Amino acid sequence: MANTIIGDNLANIPWQDKPAGCKDVCWRYDNNPVIARNHLPMSNSIFNSALVPFGDGFAGVFRVDSKCREAFIHVGFSKDGINFDISEERIEFNCDIEEVAPMIEGYDPRVCKIDDKYYVTWCNFYHGPTIGIAWTTDFKTFHQSENAFVPCNRNGVMFPRKINGNFAMLSRPSDQGHTTFGDIFYSESPDMTFWGKHRFVMGTQGGWQSKKIGAGPIPIETSEGWLLIYHGVQYSCNGFVYSMGAALLDIDEPWKVIARGKPYILSPQRDYECMGDVPNVTFPCAALTDAATGRIAIYYGCADTCTSIAFCQVDELIDYIKTNSKV
Amino acid sequence: MANTIIGDNLANIPWQDKPAGCKDVCWRYDNNPVIARNHLPMSNSIFNSALVPFGDGFAGVFRVDSKCREAFIHVGFSKDGINFDISEERIEFNCDIEEVAPMIEGYDPRVCKIDDKYYVTWCNFYHGPTIGIAWTTDFKTFHQSENAFVPCNRNGVMFPRKINGNFAMLSRPSDQGHTTFGDIFYSESPDMTFWGKHRFVMGTQGGWQSKKIGAGPIPIETSEGWLLIYHGVQYSCNGFVYSMGAALLDIDEPWKVIARGKPYILSPQRDYECMGDVPNVTFPCAALTDAATGRIAIYYGCADTCTSIAFCQVDELIDYIKTNSKV
Amino acid sequence: MANTIIGDNLANIPWQDKPAGCKDVCWRYDNNPVIARNHLPMSNSIFNSALVPFGDGFAGVFRVDSKCREAFIHVGFSKDGINFDISEERIEFNCDIEEVAPMIEGYDPRVCKIDDKYYVTWCNFYHGPTIGIAWTTDFKTFHQSENAFVPCNRNGVMFPRKINGNFAMLSRPSDQGHTTFGDIFYSESPDMTFWGKHRFVMGTQGGWQSKKIGAGPIPIETSEGWLLIYHGVQYSCNGFVYSMGAALLDIDEPWKVIARGKPYILSPQRDYECMGDVPNVTFPCAALTDAATGRIAIYYGCADTCTSIAFCQVDELIDYIKTNSKV
Amino acid sequence: MANTIIGDNLANIPWQDKPAGCKDVCWRYDNNPVIARNHLPMSNSIFNSALVPFGDGFAGVFRVDSKCREAFIHVGFSKDGINFDISEERIEFNCDIEEVAPMIEGYDPRVCKIDDKYYVTWCNFYHGPTIGIAWTTDFKTFHQSENAFVPCNRNGVMFPRKINGNFAMLSRPSDQGHTTFGDIFYSESPDMTFWGKHRFVMGTQGGWQSKKIGAGPIPIETSEGWLLIYHGVQYSCNGFVYSMGAALLDIDEPWKVIARGKPYILSPQRDYECMGDVPNVTFPCAALTDAATGRIAIYYGCADTCTSIAFCQVDELIDYIKTNSKV
Amino acid sequence: MANTIIGDNLANIPWQDKPAGCKDVCWRYDNNPVIARNHLPMSNSIFNSALVPFGDGFAGVFRVDSKCREAFIHVGFSKDGINFDISEERIEFNCDIEEVAPMIEGYDPRVCKIDDKYYVTWCNFYHGPTIGIAWTTDFKTFHQSENAFVPCNRNGVMFPRKINGNFAMLSRPSDQGHTTFGDIFYSESPDMTFWGKHRFVMGTQGGWQSKKIGAGPIPIETSEGWLLIYHGVQYSCNGFVYSMGAALLDIDEPWKVIARGKPYILSPQRDYECMGDVPNVTFPCAALTDAATGRIAIYYGCADTCTSIAFCQVDELIDYIKTNSKV
Amino acid sequence: MANTIIGDNLANIPWQDKPAGCKDVCWRYDNNPVIARNHLPMSNSIFNSALVPFGDGFAGVFRVDSKCREAFIHVGFSKDGINFDISEERIEFNCDIEEVAPMIEGYDPRVCKIDDKYYVTWCNFYHGPTIGIAWTTDFKTFHQSENAFVPCNRNGVMFPRKINGNFAMLSRPSDQGHTTFGDIFYSESPDMTFWGKHRFVMGTQGGWQSKKIGAGPIPIETSEGWLLIYHGVQYSCNGFVYSMGAALLDIDEPWKVIARGKPYILSPQRDYECMGDVPNVTFPCAALTDAATGRIAIYYGCADTCTSIAFCQVDELIDYIKTNSKV
Repeated sequence: MANTIIGDNLANIPWQDKPAGCKDVCWRYDNNPVIARNHLPMSNSIFNSALVPFGDGFAGVFRVDSKCREAFIHVGFSKDGINFDISEERIEFNCDIEEVAPMIEGYDPRVCKIDDKYYVTWCNFYHGPTIGIAWTTDFKTFHQSENAFVPCNRNGVMFPRKINGNFAMLSRPSDQGHTTFGDIFYSESPDMTFWGKHRFVMGTQGGWQSKKIGAGPIPIETSEGWLLIYHGVQYSCNGFVYSMGAALLDIDEPWKVIARGKPYILSPQRDYECMGDVPNVTFPCAALTDAATGRIAIYYGCADTCTSIAFCQVDELIDYIKTNSKV
Repeated sequence: MANTIIGDNLANIPWQDKPAGCKDVCWRYDNNPVIARNHLPMSNSIFNSALVPFGDGFAGVFRVDSKCREAFIHVGFSKDGINFDISEERIEFNCDIEEVAPMIEGYDPRVCKIDDKYYVTWCNFYHGPTIGIAWTTDFKTFHQSENAFVPCNRNGVMFPRKINGNFAMLSRPSDQGHTTFGDIFYSESPDMTFWGKHRFVMGTQGGWQSKKIGAGPIPIETSEGWLLIYHGVQYSCNGFVYSMGAALLDIDEPWKVIARGKPYILSPQRDYECMGDVPNVTFPCAALTDAATGRIAIYYGCADTCTSIAFCQVDELIDYIKTNSKV
Repeated sequence: MANTIIGDNLANIPWQDKPAGCKDVCWRYDNNPVIARNHLPMSNSIFNSALVPFGDGFAGVFRVDSKCREAFIHVGFSKDGINFDISEERIEFNCDIEEVAPMIEGYDPRVCKIDDKYYVTWCNFYHGPTIGIAWTTDFKTFHQSENAFVPCNRNGVMFPRKINGNFAMLSRPSDQGHTTFGDIFYSESPDMTFWGKHRFVMGTQGGWQSKKIGAGPIPIETSEGWLLIYHGVQYSCNGFVYSMGAALLDIDEPWKVIARGKPYILSPQRDYECMGDVPNVTFPCAALTDAATGRIAIYYGCADTCTSIAFCQVDELIDYIKTNSKV
Repeated sequence: MANTIIGDNLANIPWQDKPAGCKDVCWRYDNNPVIARNHLPMSNSIFNSALVPFGDGFAGVFRVDSKCREAFIHVGFSKDGINFDISEERIEFNCDIEEVAPMIEGYDPRVCKIDDKYYVTWCNFYHGPTIGIAWTTDFKTFHQSENAFVPCNRNGVMFPRKINGNFAMLSRPSDQGHTTFGDIFYSESPDMTFWGKHRFVMGTQGGWQSKKIGAGPIPIETSEGWLLIYHGVQYSCNGFVYSMGAALLDIDEPWKVIARGKPYILSPQRDYECMGDVPNVTFPCAALTDAATGRIAIYYGCADTCTSIAFCQVDELIDYIKTNSKV
Repeated sequence: MANTIIGDNLANIPWQDKPAGCKDVCWRYDNNPVIARNHLPMSNSIFNSALVPFGDGFAGVFRVDSKCREAFIHVGFSKDGINFDISEERIEFNCDIEEVAPMIEGYDPRVCKIDDKYYVTWCNFYHGPTIGIAWTTDFKTFHQSENAFVPCNRNGVMFPRKINGNFAMLSRPSDQGHTTFGDIFYSESPDMTFWGKHRFVMGTQGGWQSKKIGAGPIPIETSEGWLLIYHGVQYSCNGFVYSMGAALLDIDEPWKVIARGKPYILSPQRDYECMGDVPNVTFPCAALTDAATGRIAIYYGCADTCTSIAFCQVDELIDYIKTNSKV
Repeated sequence: MANTIIGDNLANIPWQDKPAGCKDVCWRYDNNPVIARNHLPMSNSIFNSALVPFGDGFAGVFRVDSKCREAFIHVGFSKDGINFDISEERIEFNCDIEEVAPMIEGYDPRVCKIDDKYYVTWCNFYHGPTIGIAWTTDFKTFHQSENAFVPCNRNGVMFPRKINGNFAMLSRPSDQGHTTFGDIFYSESPDMTFWGKHRFVMGTQGGWQSKKIGAGPIPIETSEGWLLIYHGVQYSCNGFVYSMGAALLDIDEPWKVIARGKPYILSPQRDYECMGDVPNVTFPCAALTDAATGRIAIYYGCADTCTSIAFCQVDELIDYIKTNSKV
């Protein structure tokens, strides 16, 4: 295999081989969605959620919208990455910073292991949406720290190790509402409290990613650079369409784009992606990888309603990005 | 039964018991929709319609949009509340007030029996949308009176008896277009011509009811207060989502909210609710009740396209409102 | 004089003859503005204000915006209609209706004598702008009653006597913000509490009155009908322009327009009309008339900043309306 | 048959008789869609496409959106009008006009045979959308000429023969974005380079065609006038809905509307019309006709995603237009 | 003089030498405005008007807005280009094209002599703004021909001679309202009826011309190319600001920009430019030139209210454009 | 004097005593504006500029908009704070951070002395407006460092000493355009590179500060807390109005507001404030103070066109804030 994932071997992630005759670089799990909107008695929808290997299975943070249509983050566990045990109670973050502590809403979480801590980032509300941060070691107790930026900002996604000696995060500055713009920026921090060295990474291009773009799963380290799976948004007269694309970022200077796939790798085409509370959304938030086989399982939210899985092979995806690259 | 409907016994309303395992307070008729969009040869859609007990069955007023996509109100009858005989001709209202008589369009009707008259209210057009009023005793001849308010206003819903010696109505002031705001107000009239004592009842809250709210069926009198089923609207980047909620209003001062259910009781989740001329709409306009059993059958429009029924039990619903109340 | 004002003789109203060579139907007082923006130490601006004969001089209600830029109504007196003694304190209305009593803001008042009471109407705030009402007999104590309509509404202007046995009011339904539409409606009330019989009077036309229109001073009763001076708004790429026009309404059915002057009678052309907090506004709110001579003195707000006077002759104005009428 | 198509007999166009019990003037092919979104490995969607008789079968120009979501025009052929062989490569137009040659994007093509040339018109991009023109005789080589108008314009549809000695075209002036207005205009040209004698044909009406309208297939010449099938757009709070209607234009002065059907003849009601990249779109771009039988097969794009066929009979359709006409 | 005007000697055009110490390339007449808003008894404003040499003086077409605020074109004459005799009646165009004849409104005219005819172009209304055309030989009778383009379009400005054997016109496609975009296009016509060969000339740049641009006076032929004086619009939070700039276009291919001055040559700075019906507008519509001396007198509308003159020297202006060019 | 400025004595700052009879807390210099729009031959306008004591006079950074209407920062000097020598060339910042170095535009600068360095902050453009930072010791060489935040942000204003051991800055997160919202936030940095501990300071209130607010001059340290002079924006139908207000912040926790003056202290009322490129703007950017006398000279931009001075006394201003406080 030419392109190597720099990471652990994880033989137990979900997987299905590509269907015969399929010419796409990315294919769906045939039993999607894996988390239905009514998975919990109190849930209106569960989507845009993230998980990581934990113990002999997986642990995750899940966006659960209640039947009040309020969005909060719940913890959950799974042995196989397909069947989930999600808490009915939202996470209560420990926070001794008086200004930051009140949890008004929280959504679209990501989770990232760095050394021995699991960092959760999410869209937090503090006089506008901004990036909330917390860490845990056991997925029981979560310690909330300072928000990363002044509002408004969304889609804060950390890198899985320090870069240039600092913690590193991608984010997408936004406005208060259904933002009609969005570029990906990179920032660093020596201490997870103070953030700086902000760098522009990439902005919109034509077609499916012409309105705004934002990072999806934690970037995957490979021999070819950081593999970034992200969402792109196109705007029709009938609203936004969220598709998935992929790019390669420089290992040491991740704000430099090595290659960026011009076509999407997956777009809303199935009923559960086209129909729901927000039609036409496929929104990736996590990826499980197995370095031994190059397998990648992408978790993505569907129509802001439920959660599904899609698969790809790291070498095939990287070749696809390079072959179809437009930077 | 702790919570009593103050009204007639009506053994012949449609009913299905709650399905086993269902944890929701409100469940759908399993043969929805009961009125298809092409129910009439000339109809594009039939929805947001209302009915009342009449004779040994039911009579109603139906929003029928033609294949010209013009909206008018048609009369219809049903023996069982499930199979309908709807007129292909729209109602011609008798009106001797020259200013008020021209019927430019009419939609989203409600019907309310007070003493021996059936009052129809609807969204009438008089230099903007406002509340049209007419009464009938036989569902053949309809007498139209003064519009209730200066434009713009929608969703005028009467109470089924006088309050404080006056007729009483809920309404939702609006603008000319696809109004992005909407609170429920209460007004009284000594004579169905002059309206005053306007009171704010309740406004938007978070989540599913964050953009606007409006009264649905005629309020149901109970031992706990007026039971109000209403619609709430949330706004996503892909448009409005109309869900149903419920609240309890004070019997003598109905502008005082006793309890208000924070979660919705039903939201667009089925194909016929998510797909159609206006996707993601569930819009209640009538309720049939049986005091003896506490059964409630709610009639609601789906996706501005067809008409469906949902069921609930009055005591369970009231408990649900109180338990989940946020005022 | 062909056209007679049906009203009192008032020899002491302000007056200047039309300047030689002036071909306009309406001309300005040559010492405008009569009330400067800093007339009071605490005032940012005083405009859109109204007065009536009272005692041996005049009494009035004045929109005073403080240096907090909050708008409230102040009482004031004048011997000659030119020099004013305006209170630094805003009017505290007596109101025993708990819902209505809180005064959040109040602006653009009119005052109208009917029998022995002086009725003040203004843009009141109750979950949106609406028409506040109060009455006084001495300009010391003001008794506030129910708001006339559900929000949103502005520019409520009463008729100076009952019509068809009822009180009568013009108003202009609006939205919450800088409303981009506006027609004049007529409503009646038997008791100043309940309002109904709403009638459309007139809407926008081309040019200077193409965006919205609203009643100005209390209509003036004449042998030719009610003389209505009103504001019309045109919209350029650089904002709204408020001009003044005039129309004649039927005496017994004032929602019927007899004649309506197509040209404006005055538009923003002087520095104090074109420059200020809201440039390009001339906004009439009151008129003093002398039946003996047919003289009319119009009080109008300038640029939302100060207050000025313009003059016209009733017979000349009515001829002008009729000659240039477009209904 | 009372109403005659003035054109060729084409026995091989697709056809299905009207289903028993169907009361509509226009009915769908029962194996729709005929071109799926993933018809080509590289296609995201294929829709809003046109074809004409060619050789012993049909040739066409197809809007193919790639997985980059870029829109271009591809050539294709079919023996039966149902199974298509579409090129994976977009058409490379020959153009020796330097200013006009660069092909930035191209979509929504029509094709029209006049004498021995096939003229392709489409939405071309030249500092904004405008009408691109090219001709071919063999569907291999395409000669691009001057754009018809200054931007912005869309939906240029030619007439199949000269009128008044000039070439003739319908178009719909627009703006740069998701235009919220749109009327149909008629223009002539002596030489396919210079255009003039611009005439207004028809604008929006109520209901399904209240927001904008645009020509669909090449007008069909009949004994009753030009039969124009066109799209009309209605705007709900959840976006645009594109339906199909029909009108008759004067043979010699086609800007004069003889009759215009007030109801739509087809609107988005099936899953493949209501769900896709742009929900609720039915957009006709071509029609095949058989003069001998009066059969018409309409090709229309569905939800900006796939392509379908609907059928009607010319005499029935013309009667329907006349019977339901509102001009 | 290095840069020569290719045109007639006109010793009688208005002129003042540049004031001592003035460092600007363009300076104002010291008795501006030359036409006041109330120049006519019926006028609200006179601006955006054009004139040409005629007989022993000048003739022109003037935008006169009445006190109804309706815009029409009036004819006028002047001996000295400073004192004007403007008709109180609007021009009645002779037009035997039934579709084109109705004059709904007309504004912002230009006038251009080609051979022995004077062509007037203006913003005409035909289902939207478009370019009206008429010609006269005596400024008494005006013959109206076909509109140049399908709507929406404004600022049609002809060249003073044929180019490439065709008539030539600049225009600025627009939308129905206060258009927020605008580039200059070039089109040709063999016969003043059919128009084609549309070419993009230039679009917006930064600063004062960042929102839209449009041609002003008839282009002036010089040894260096066509000298184009045009308006550019910048958008602040308080509306549009219209300034004047200048460019040089290729003589034979005028869509090719040789040089384009990056700074404006005049912007709204005087009271009569900053204050009026539309504050902050300087809008050039005509220029008189004297080949012998290189003098140019520019006529420009001020604040959509009155008309003024500014002066420049052709050689100095061309040098300024070239020195400060950004293409 | 009860309220003491904690700072240097500066006997040479501009000063005029309050005019007799003036009741305002803040009064204008009677020779305003001190910097005219055409102060430099190449300048369209000079405004929103800042200065500090330097040497035996003053040095400053000036927003100069050229006649191209491009905004950059120029250095300037003054002996008396009234007559200025401003460079015609913009500052060339030294910057070795490749990402940050390109200067696309720069405006609305502030300057703040901390220890022995003068820090300049301004609205910089880096994929949107954000806070640029540079320092100088001699006003000749300027060293540019990292931008403070991810875009979009404006009005970054530093504190004149470290707080809690960190550098401290106020800022106003915004959007890309003419932002319609704006609250003041506080952030800290240990090193002028990494920023965090973001705190909400204060948001909009009613009236003149109802749309957005932003810090003005460097906060003035006093015995009562940090004295903050800021701008507030109100929105009328004719655009934004920028006024000046003042507040007191806690010395050690400056995000805690001690007192906040509800009235403005100065609003646009003079010709040079009401008329210009952006009418109705008074925008403070700097203040010179003399601890010995408590004198404050405020420099503010007028109508985005020129620069003026206003005066106040520290003790009077603080008393005014406290007396009229609304927090």
